[in-house]
Amino acid sequence: MEIVVIGGGAAGLKAAARIRRLNDEAKLTVIEAGKYPSISRCGLPFYVGGMLQEPRNLLETTYGAVRDVNYFKKVKNIDVLTETKAIEINREKKLVKTVNKEGKEDEFSYDYLIVATGSKPVKPPIEGIDEDVEGIVHLHGVEDAERILDAWEEDAENAVIIGAGLIGMECAEALHNLDMNVTIVEIMDHILPTMLDEEIARMVENHIRAKGINLRLSSKVEKILNDGEKVTGVIINGEEVETDLVVVAAGVRPNVELAKKAGLEIGETGAIKVNEKMQTSDKNIYAGGDCVECIHLLTGKPVYTPMGSVANKQGRVIGDNICGIDSKFPGVLGTAIFQIFGMSIGRTGLCEREVDGAVVGCVAGADRFHFHPEHRPIRIKLIADKNGRLVGCQAAGLGVIDKRLDVAVSAIQMGAKAIDLTNFDLAYAPPFSTAIDLIIAAANMVDNKLRGLVESINAVNFARMLMSDEKFTVIDVRTEKEFKARSVKDERVINIPLSELRERVDEVPEEAILICQVGTRSYEAARFLTQKGKKVKVVDGGYAFFQPVLEHYGIEVGER
Amino acid sequence: MEIVVIGGGAAGLKAAARIRRLNDEAKLTVIEAGKYPSISRCGLPFYVGGMLQEPRNLLETTYGAVRDVNYFKKVKNIDVLTETKAIEINREKKLVKTVNKEGKEDEFSYDYLIVATGSKPVKPPIEGIDEDVEGIVHLHGVEDAERILDAWEEDAENAVIIGAGLIGMECAEALHNLDMNVTIVEIMDHILPTMLDEEIARMVENHIRAKGINLRLSSKVEKILNDGEKVTGVIINGEEVETDLVVVAAGVRPNVELAKKAGLEIGETGAIKVNEKMQTSDKNIYAGGDCVECIHLLTGKPVYTPMGSVANKQGRVIGDNICGIDSKFPGVLGTAIFQIFGMSIGRTGLCEREVDGAVVGCVAGADRFHFHPEHRPIRIKLIADKNGRLVGCQAAGLGVIDKRLDVAVSAIQMGAKAIDLTNFDLAYAPPFSTAIDLIIAAANMVDNKLRGLVESINAVNFARMLMSDEKFTVIDVRTEKEFKARSVKDERVINIPLSELRERVDEVPEEAILICQVGTRSYEAARFLTQKGKKVKVVDGGYAFFQPVLEHYGIEVGER
Repeated sequence: MEIVVIGGGAAGLKAAARIRRLNDEAKLTVIEAGKYPSISRCGLPFYVGGMLQEPRNLLETTYGAVRDVNYFKKVKNIDVLTETKAIEINREKKLVKTVNKEGKEDEFSYDYLIVATGSKPVKPPIEGIDEDVEGIVHLHGVEDAERILDAWEEDAENAVIIGAGLIGMECAEALHNLDMNVTIVEIMDHILPTMLDEEIARMVENHIRAKGINLRLSSKVEKILNDGEKVTGVIINGEEVETDLVVVAAGVRPNVELAKKAGLEIGETGAIKVNEKMQTSDKNIYAGGDCVECIHLLTGKPVYTPMGSVANKQGRVIGDNICGIDSKFPGVLGTAIFQIFGMSIGRTGLCEREVDGAVVGCVAGADRFHFHPEHRPIRIKLIADKNGRLVGCQAAGLGVIDKRLDVAVSAIQMGAKAIDLTNFDLAYAPPFSTAIDLIIAAANMVDNKLRGLVESINAVNFARMLMSDEKFTVIDVRTEKEFKARSVKDERVINIPLSELRERVDEVPEEAILICQVGTRSYEAARFLTQKGKKVKVVDGGYAFFQPVLEHYGIEVGER
Repeated sequence: MEIVVIGGGAAGLKAAARIRRLNDEAKLTVIEAGKYPSISRCGLPFYVGGMLQEPRNLLETTYGAVRDVNYFKKVKNIDVLTETKAIEINREKKLVKTVNKEGKEDEFSYDYLIVATGSKPVKPPIEGIDEDVEGIVHLHGVEDAERILDAWEEDAENAVIIGAGLIGMECAEALHNLDMNVTIVEIMDHILPTMLDEEIARMVENHIRAKGINLRLSSKVEKILNDGEKVTGVIINGEEVETDLVVVAAGVRPNVELAKKAGLEIGETGAIKVNEKMQTSDKNIYAGGDCVECIHLLTGKPVYTPMGSVANKQGRVIGDNICGIDSKFPGVLGTAIFQIFGMSIGRTGLCEREVDGAVVGCVAGADRFHFHPEHRPIRIKLIADKNGRLVGCQAAGLGVIDKRLDVAVSAIQMGAKAIDLTNFDLAYAPPFSTAIDLIIAAANMVDNKLRGLVESINAVNFARMLMSDEKFTVIDVRTEKEFKARSVKDERVINIPLSELRERVDEVPEEAILICQVGTRSYEAARFLTQKGKKVKVVDGGYAFFQPVLEHYGIEVGER
C-alpha cells in the first residue's frame, strides 16, 4: 500500500505515524514545502518571547530526540521530503507531482492520499502590506519568528500588531517582553470578537492596557509606510503612527489551492469538506488539520477552527480509516485558550449572543479555598440553552480557569444539562478548589434561573441602562464600607447592605436592580425581596463582571 | 413551616440557607453541639500547618464576614443554637429534644427535620488510646487542631500518625512543617489502600519518604504509652518508639446514634440510608453530609464517602425538596484528591483491581508543552471496563493533575466511553497542556488496547516477574545512554533502542516484554514487532510506573 501525505505538520505526520504503527508494510512518503517537518506552530510566540533557545526545540520529542528527516526514516520508516512542493494531484492516475528546491520535478503514486496542507496567514487589504521591505511579518513559520528577532536585534522599539485574535494576543506579550512598545489594532469593537462575549473581552482589555499595551479598537490600519528599505510607520484611522515592526495577525485561512485544482469539494467556510472519517469527496483522498473544515458539535454547521489539538485528533482518525479501523472525528466545540501577562482566558461552545433564550450563570471567586495562600480570582460565564442544555463557557482570571473550561467542554460534549453538572463529583481539597467549585456554582445559578427563581441583567446591558436617562433604582447590597470605597457615582444607585435588608425592606421600591460584588449577595437579596412582592433583577456576576465594562461606557465610579 | 436542622456543618447549613432563599416564611432552627457553626473541617490540617492565623478564618465568607450565630440570624433569619445537643427525636410528635451546655433541656417541633449529624473519628482498638493524657489527638475539630499546636509549643519533637489515609497524609505535611519528626503507621501494605492502586500509592510513598517522613507499612500501633500525664511512646510491631504526640487518623464513621434511636433506617455501610431526594425512611426527615451513605454511580451500591463537596450538594437537594422543588442527588464516584510536599494525588471511580477485565491506559509526561518553563511531570492511569466505558482514573505528579481528574470525573459521570474522550475538544495552548493532552493520550491507549493493538503487563506484576526465577526476555527500547545510566540489573533485560529496532529485529526472541521511559516508545516497538510475528507485551507506563515499585520489591537498579 502506497500512501502519500502532502504537508508535514501535525495532522499529516500524526496520520503517517499512526499508519506506520498499524501497517508496517505501507510505503509512506511525506511531502513538506518548508525546511522542517513537524514544527509546532503554537510555540512560535513563545520562541519570540524568549522561552526557547532555538527553533530546533520546537522539533524535539519529550525525550530529546529531534524529529527531523533522519528520525522519521530511521525510527518510523517514513520518507519525509522537505523543501519539496506538491504541485498537482492527478486523481485519475493517483499521482502527486512535486518539485524540489532545485526545481527538479518528480511524481509519487498513491493508493491513499492525505492532504494536510495547513493554513496561511490572512493578508488584509492594506496599502503597502505587500512591499518588499524589512519589518512586515506574518507570524506563521519559524522564519517569521526569526525576522521578528532580527528586527529586535536591530533595536526595533515600536511594534504594531494588526488583529486582536489569539496569535495577536500571544504575540503582544512576546514583543512586550522584548521591551517594545506594542500597539494592537483591532477593527472590531472588542478584542477576540468572534471568541468572547463583550464583558469577558473587556476583562482582558483592561488587563493588558494596565500592563502597558496600547489597544486601538474599532480601528483600522489603512497604510503601512516605509522608507524603501524598512517599515517606518502605519496610518491608523487617518493618523500616522511611527513603528519599526508590523506584525500581521489577522487570522489564517486554509491552503486549498491544490485540493481545489484537483476538484475536491470545498466547504462553505472555504476549507476542504470532509466526512466523519476525514474523507474528502474522493474516497481515496483524506484531509485533516488546518486545511479542512469541521462540524460544530452544537450547531451541526461547518466551522473553520484551525488548532493543533484538533489536527492531531484528525490525523489519528485518518490513519485508522486508511488501515481499516472504523474511526470517526465527531466535530469541535471551538474551544480556545490563551494566557497573557499572567491572565488566562478561554472559551468553548457558543457565545451568549449566539443562543436564543440563553440562560447564563456568571460567577466570580477564588479558584481554591480562600484561606489557601495560592488562591487567585477567576470569573466564569456558563451558558445553557432555554432547555437547560449546556452550550458554552467563557472564563478569565489570574487563577486556574483551564480546569473549569475543560469540565465544561467534557459536559457539553457529552450532552450534559446544567442540572447534571451541579452534581458532578469533582475533585475537592483546599489546594485545588472550593467545596462548591465555581463551575458548579455557575451551574447552580443556571439551574436557579431555569427554575425561575431569579431574573438577571447582563453587565453590558446594565452599563447601557446607566448611560441612559431612564428612571430606575439600583440597590447595591454590599457593605457600607465596600459601597463607600468604590461604586457607581449615580443617584439612582443606593446602598442597603444585605445584612440590613430585612430591617430596611420598606426602603426598597416596587422594582429594583440589585448588585453586589460577585452576585451571591444580590441573589440572596433577590430571593428575599421577590418573596416580599418586589420585582427585582440582579446584575449577572455583580461588580466582577460590571467593573470591566465601566470604562468603555464612560461610567463614573469611585469613592462615595 | 417549621424546620429543625440537627448539625451546623456544611450539609445542614447549606440546606437551611437554601430553604431560606426559597421560603422566607419558614422558621429555621439549627442545633449545633460544637462551639462554632459552619466550620470547614477540610481546612484543619492547613490550620495546623500554619496557613491560617486563627480558626475564625475557617468561618469567614469570601467577603470577610464571619459566619457566626449573629450572621445567620441577621442575614439569613436562621436561629443557630451552638453548644446545644439534640438528645432525642420524637417522630410521632415531630419533636426534637435538646440540652444546652448549662444542662437546660428544651424541645423544638418540626414539620421537616434535617439530620446532618456528621461524623466522628474512628478509634482503633489500641491499648492506651482512651487514657486521659496529653498528646493523643483525633484531628476532627478546631479544639483538636489547637491541641496539636499546644503540643508543638511545648516542644513536641516526634509525632506518630496512625493511618495513611487522606487526613493522615495532609496531617503529615503539617506536622513536618512544624519541624516534627513524623512517622506514619499504616496497617495495610500500601498507603491510601482503599483509594489507590498499588503503583500509584508507591509514587506517593517514595515522594514523602524522600522528604523525611518515616513510613511503616503493614504495621500496627499496639499500645500508646504514657507517664501518667503525657504520651511518651508507642509500641509498633512489638518495638517501642518514643513519641510526644499521637495523631489518630484512622478515618471517620457516621454519627448515627440519634437516628438509630429514632428508628430511622441505617444502611449496610452503617450510615443513614436515604433516597435520591435525601429522604430517610421517615418522609418528614431528610439527612445529608457525613452521616449518610451515598450510591456509587458505577456499582449502584451504597458507599460511605464523607466529603465537604458532597455535603454541600446534598444540602442544596434537601432544601429544594423540602420547598417543593423536585431535586435529586444521583450519587458519587468517590473522587478524592490531596497534595503533599508539592505532589498532587487524586482518584475517581473504581480501582483497576475492582474491575473485571479492566483495560487501563497508563501515561506519563509533561502537564504542558515541554518547552514551557513551568511544565512538570504527571502520571495518569485511566481505567475502562471491557466494553470501553470509563470507570476510573488515578493520577499523581508535581504538575497539574486535578484538571485531568476532573475531565475524567465529568466523562465518567456522563457515561462516556474511552473513544468519546479521545475526541474531547479540550482547551489547548502551550501554557496549559500538550497538543494531545495526557488524559486524551491515556484514552487513546485504552482505545488501542480495546482494539487489540497491544498487550500489556502492569508495573506491579512485572516487578513480581522480575523477582521470580522465570525465564523471559525484556527489551528496553530506550536509548543506549538512558539504558546505561539507569536500568534494572538483570541479565534477562537487554537494550535495543527503538531507533535500531528495525535493523536488529533478528535479535528479538519470539516472545518479549518491552519497556521504555513512559510507554510511548515501547508501544511503537510493540506494534512493529507484532507485525513481524513476535509475541510482545509492554510494561504499562514504562519506567514512570515501574520505577516507583522497584524498591518495594527489592529490585536492583542502577548504572549498566
